[in-house]
Amino acid sequence: DVANEFQLQKESLTQKLQDTEDRNLSLEARLSALEQHEQSRQLEREAFRAHLRSLLQMLDGKIFELTELRDTLAKLIESS
Amino acid sequence: DVANEFQLQKESLTQKLQDTEDRNLSLEARLSALEQHEQSRQLEREAFRAHLRSLLQMLDGKIFELTELRDTLAKLIESS
Amino acid sequence: DVANEFQLQKESLTQKLQDTEDRNLSLEARLSALEQHEQSRQLEREAFRAHLRSLLQMLDGKIFELTELRDTLAKLIESS
Amino acid sequence: DVANEFQLQKESLTQKLQDTEDRNLSLEARLSALEQHEQSRQLEREAFRAHLRSLLQMLDGKIFELTELRDTLAKLIESS
Repeated sequence: DVANEFQLQKESLTQKLQDTEDRNLSLEARLSALEQHEQSRQLEREAFRAHLRSLLQMLDGKIFELTELRDTLAKLIESS
Repeated sequence: DVANEFQLQKESLTQKLQDTEDRNLSLEARLSALEQHEQSRQLEREAFRAHLRSLLQMLDGKIFELTELRDTLAKLIESS
Repeated sequence: DVANEFQLQKESLTQKLQDTEDRNLSLEARLSALEQHEQSRQLEREAFRAHLRSLLQMLDGKIFELTELRDTLAKLIESS
Repeated sequence: DVANEFQLQKESLTQKLQDTEDRNLSLEARLSALEQHEQSRQLEREAFRAHLRSLLQMLDGKIFELTELRDTLAKLIESS
């Protein structure tokens, strides 16, 4: 009868809604995990780039010192 | 009456289900976009690391050539 | 007698002259050897200095190449 | 007469002896100057070589420091 029919429809809709909300929670959990991963990756990248910049400054220093050494050698050759 | 009551409950459930499915689609779209972003970031990181490795090899070459130059200078000093 | 006396003086002077001329020849030989030694030393010094100048140019080249490598690293870091 | 003849020979010999001794003194002076020049040149050469050796040690230091920098870059690339 009609009351039974309505009851079945209501149960089916309630089940579908439950499944969709479960899938929603799962998607939100994955999204949050991915965003956190992305954020920690970003911090790693910045630390990496900071390390590289510090290496670049050290390389600048070495090139400067080699140039000083080169100038000392040049003066020594010309003075001899 | 009862038939009216059921009809209202059914409409309310159908609306909630529609909203939850819409949110689902939106979450899946964000997840997919984030995964693609992550993948392209990964490719960038690999290209960056490949560039750094090639710079490292060039640095190795320069250090090797400076060492040869140093040996030539050492021999020249000792032979004089 | 006087003739004898003169003869002795002449012999003594001739001997002294001979000794002094011998010493002269010996001094001229040493001087000539020393001048030749000095000249070959001068050529060695010039060859040595030419070698050093060529090493200096090679050092210039290496410093230039290290500076290019440094610039490439700097661009790579800034582009990442 | 004979006495006159002897006297002339003696004077001629004495003059020649004087000239040869003068040349001797002049040669000894040049020899001594050349030896002193050579000695001071030798000291210059040793000071020059000492400077070059000290530059060589500085170059060794720079090459060592570039190698350390290279190793730090290699570890950074591999750890990323």
